[in-house]
Amino acid sequence: MAESQGYRVLWYTEWLSSQEAHIHAIKRIIFDGYTKYQRVTLAETGSFGLTLFLDGYAQSSEYDEFVYHEALVHPAMLTHPKPEKVLIIGGGEGATLREVLKHPTVKRAVMVDIDGELLEIVKKYMVKWHQNCFNDPRAEVVVADGKKYLEETSETFDVIILDLTDPTKGTPGVQLYTKEFYEEIYDKLSKDGVMVTQATSTRYNIDAFSVINNTVASVFPVERPYKAHVATFYSEWGFALGSKSRDPLGIPRNELSERLGRLGLKFLDEEIFYHLFHFPRYLKEKMQ
Amino acid sequence: MAESQGYRVLWYTEWLSSQEAHIHAIKRIIFDGYTKYQRVTLAETGSFGLTLFLDGYAQSSEYDEFVYHEALVHPAMLTHPKPEKVLIIGGGEGATLREVLKHPTVKRAVMVDIDGELLEIVKKYMVKWHQNCFNDPRAEVVVADGKKYLEETSETFDVIILDLTDPTKGTPGVQLYTKEFYEEIYDKLSKDGVMVTQATSTRYNIDAFSVINNTVASVFPVERPYKAHVATFYSEWGFALGSKSRDPLGIPRNELSERLGRLGLKFLDEEIFYHLFHFPRYLKEKMQ
Amino acid sequence: MAESQGYRVLWYTEWLSSQEAHIHAIKRIIFDGYTKYQRVTLAETGSFGLTLFLDGYAQSSEYDEFVYHEALVHPAMLTHPKPEKVLIIGGGEGATLREVLKHPTVKRAVMVDIDGELLEIVKKYMVKWHQNCFNDPRAEVVVADGKKYLEETSETFDVIILDLTDPTKGTPGVQLYTKEFYEEIYDKLSKDGVMVTQATSTRYNIDAFSVINNTVASVFPVERPYKAHVATFYSEWGFALGSKSRDPLGIPRNELSERLGRLGLKFLDEEIFYHLFHFPRYLKEKMQ
Amino acid sequence: MAESQGYRVLWYTEWLSSQEAHIHAIKRIIFDGYTKYQRVTLAETGSFGLTLFLDGYAQSSEYDEFVYHEALVHPAMLTHPKPEKVLIIGGGEGATLREVLKHPTVKRAVMVDIDGELLEIVKKYMVKWHQNCFNDPRAEVVVADGKKYLEETSETFDVIILDLTDPTKGTPGVQLYTKEFYEEIYDKLSKDGVMVTQATSTRYNIDAFSVINNTVASVFPVERPYKAHVATFYSEWGFALGSKSRDPLGIPRNELSERLGRLGLKFLDEEIFYHLFHFPRYLKEKMQ
Repeated sequence: MAESQGYRVLWYTEWLSSQEAHIHAIKRIIFDGYTKYQRVTLAETGSFGLTLFLDGYAQSSEYDEFVYHEALVHPAMLTHPKPEKVLIIGGGEGATLREVLKHPTVKRAVMVDIDGELLEIVKKYMVKWHQNCFNDPRAEVVVADGKKYLEETSETFDVIILDLTDPTKGTPGVQLYTKEFYEEIYDKLSKDGVMVTQATSTRYNIDAFSVINNTVASVFPVERPYKAHVATFYSEWGFALGSKSRDPLGIPRNELSERLGRLGLKFLDEEIFYHLFHFPRYLKEKMQ
Repeated sequence: MAESQGYRVLWYTEWLSSQEAHIHAIKRIIFDGYTKYQRVTLAETGSFGLTLFLDGYAQSSEYDEFVYHEALVHPAMLTHPKPEKVLIIGGGEGATLREVLKHPTVKRAVMVDIDGELLEIVKKYMVKWHQNCFNDPRAEVVVADGKKYLEETSETFDVIILDLTDPTKGTPGVQLYTKEFYEEIYDKLSKDGVMVTQATSTRYNIDAFSVINNTVASVFPVERPYKAHVATFYSEWGFALGSKSRDPLGIPRNELSERLGRLGLKFLDEEIFYHLFHFPRYLKEKMQ
Repeated sequence: MAESQGYRVLWYTEWLSSQEAHIHAIKRIIFDGYTKYQRVTLAETGSFGLTLFLDGYAQSSEYDEFVYHEALVHPAMLTHPKPEKVLIIGGGEGATLREVLKHPTVKRAVMVDIDGELLEIVKKYMVKWHQNCFNDPRAEVVVADGKKYLEETSETFDVIILDLTDPTKGTPGVQLYTKEFYEEIYDKLSKDGVMVTQATSTRYNIDAFSVINNTVASVFPVERPYKAHVATFYSEWGFALGSKSRDPLGIPRNELSERLGRLGLKFLDEEIFYHLFHFPRYLKEKMQ
Repeated sequence: MAESQGYRVLWYTEWLSSQEAHIHAIKRIIFDGYTKYQRVTLAETGSFGLTLFLDGYAQSSEYDEFVYHEALVHPAMLTHPKPEKVLIIGGGEGATLREVLKHPTVKRAVMVDIDGELLEIVKKYMVKWHQNCFNDPRAEVVVADGKKYLEETSETFDVIILDLTDPTKGTPGVQLYTKEFYEEIYDKLSKDGVMVTQATSTRYNIDAFSVINNTVASVFPVERPYKAHVATFYSEWGFALGSKSRDPLGIPRNELSERLGRLGLKFLDEEIFYHLFHFPRYLKEKMQ
């Protein structure tokens, strides 16, 4: 079997529900094993290139990791008038940190991920994602429990970004989707502080998406659900943004245009920025 | 095995490429067989409800057939100032005809599908799609080869809609994606005539999507590629619109608002209408 | 998609465990639906021809249904010196009855299956299996609960054959694998009576295979576990035979030879007859 | 995802034909990569334990590798009255060598495998298979092309065992299934020499099985097809034995009994030995 053909023997199966799955032919396993926290599979897929899977689900792929990461990071960063101190919880691939550091106002970006073994794999094999941003002098990478870190820190941040795996029952990440945790975040945000969290698929988990947004809305005066189509997730992916003061839809148009333009993005632009927050009627009816 | 559980035994597999597939548990086969033209499988899926598959691919599902059909039909219909005569080629489910007939200006809508056996199945089992629109006095359903019908008719139409299966090598549908066919369409369109065709997935067939749009653009003075996220297709779905005179992005705003508002749609609204035509930078770079 | 190729879209999945499955491309669904008792799927598979699946598992296929049915029926029939009255419980396909009727001594064969809807499907579509044996004047087909039938009948039988689906928790068939039921069978067997039951796969359910054999052995003075390789089941299939007096391994050689020779079988012969009862050391160690 | 559950995400797919496959959940990939000759995947499966896959197919598994290896090695070894010099071509797992060395008459066993990278993986991870037999003073392991080795050697052997991957078009192994190669083997066998080759599945490749046996029969005066049920291959596996003088079915019964008894096997015994060579009528009809 030449490497170039015939590798349809090893398949990664993402169970979108018990009744539906998406399957990828794996050309080559780069890494497959269990860290203390999760099964980590880094593989070259047939269609999406290098892809990181955690516990059964693609986290991001070479094909469009920037879509997810741009959509996660920049709406929150732009909602804050001048983000200088940023905290990322999760975000093991390093791409969230990479996007944060594109903002010239940032002076300090702390990334806290619980899985040190995963970080070593990422550093070694996923340079396309992190692009060595871990070495940026403004960056600090901490291996720790994000919740505990936040509770114990005396720092405040302008923007806090939650880049986590989905809230699956029985996994430790669940506590990072609670009202208590969002209140802790509120407390550790500075005056115009903004938070954002990934909020699962609007197709496959519309209920979880609604609940997460409602929970953020119960803590923050300004709250906006939004979504972006991410091919690697076969659906539109949801997010929840909470802000202490400014509404993302209220950013002065020229400020948005100028700040966005400077970032050199591949997915997000002004037109798309507004569209992220617009839901078709049939989805609005499904969100409660 | 109770009907409510345990039906994870029969799976429909859509091969998005030789390296990737999407699989659906089938709760119940309503119909599975070969017509003269294609394999028709109508089935209750685990996640998308009743779904029609032709030759290996979902054509539309209960979950969001309206997204695809609204996105296919209304941009072309609205681009024409006053569509009275409409021709649909393909569109076996009847949902394209249903959407066309929502426009109060329409006086005559002809639907030409080659597969009479499929039409019988649709009439019997897919009422949710066609909603008996076949009986609308303005509608005429013809079982015939769409290309031949168009060549032989002496009528002209205001809007021609191509609702076809993908242009797969070796299938008869391929000739409905050629320059010659689009020229035939041009000739049979009235003065301000508009055509639209489905144009495959922007994720899985970006090259076919580009080619179809370029071919339409080589025939029509105004041409617009557009796309909409259709969950049943796991990606953003592409379309190609050709117009003899009016640009969809040049429709007077109040006309668009008024005509769209009257249709009572579940997916398409003004904001989304404009967004259909907007592509992120990374996709623009992939389109040639 | 021509019927002759390209039908790799609909797959039947047999879950041998939660960690292993065998999948079949389905060329055409003949029937798929739920009777009162089970999901019935009759389909043309790519590799095994016409195959009947009940509740997720192949029951038998055109390719080698005779292997299973010859192995189920004839060892018990031959163990009885002169079987005249035979009772089959289950056996919906009619092939067990067909094999029973090959024995010239048989005067009456009653087949009791609970699923009348299944029987109608079998009669209509599975002629290759039953070969119209339902019309044999010696045969009687009863739609009833086999356990109840046995309890209520005042008849006795020379051979009783249990051709059932596997004993899966929560299905009604489970009670047909109990000591109580085997005692009932013992009571309804004539003096030299013999019973046999299918006993699951020696590969995938070695524990169930052992338990069934031990249960039969707790009721009958003579008990023999045996197995045959059935390609449609991907493994060696197990059986349990209980006899009131004669041991299958004690049948006079010339009697065996003569009676077997008359049957015109495709799988079973003298050499294979003895080998059915012989287990390799590693399997013997797994059976307790 | 705990290691003990939930690993149903990575599946190995063995395509038995384009219409049928067997799939295994992979708990952990030990090695996956491409040597110069083949894709090597060593993995812990859900049902068969540690399993070696080459180019898409299981070669052997912890569950029953001894069945395949005992069936491959011992009939040929026993057919020779006193095997002292043995050549194995292929056999990378080392288990064929292990079985050969069980025969006390063996003075020298040469194993020639083309894939040195595979051998390194085997040595490191598959101790359960080779049980360090590579270090036996009677054993010599050569990394070379088996055909070339045989052509160039001036040695003769008493038994030659071909433990190869299947003869798939376009792979180098094909030439090890030709009449020319079997003639070369004949020439390098001593007076009472015996050869054996694996000969694919009697279920999935009955034609290849027949052809291989016929080819061996065209070179050797004594030829015997045989088969054994190997659970890891979901079917009965075929072999072809060629002998210069003694027929395996003509081994004196007491010699067979004594020599077999000494080996301490888990699968093969006297009863099974004879049964290997016996085919049911329906298979005999398929073999031409």
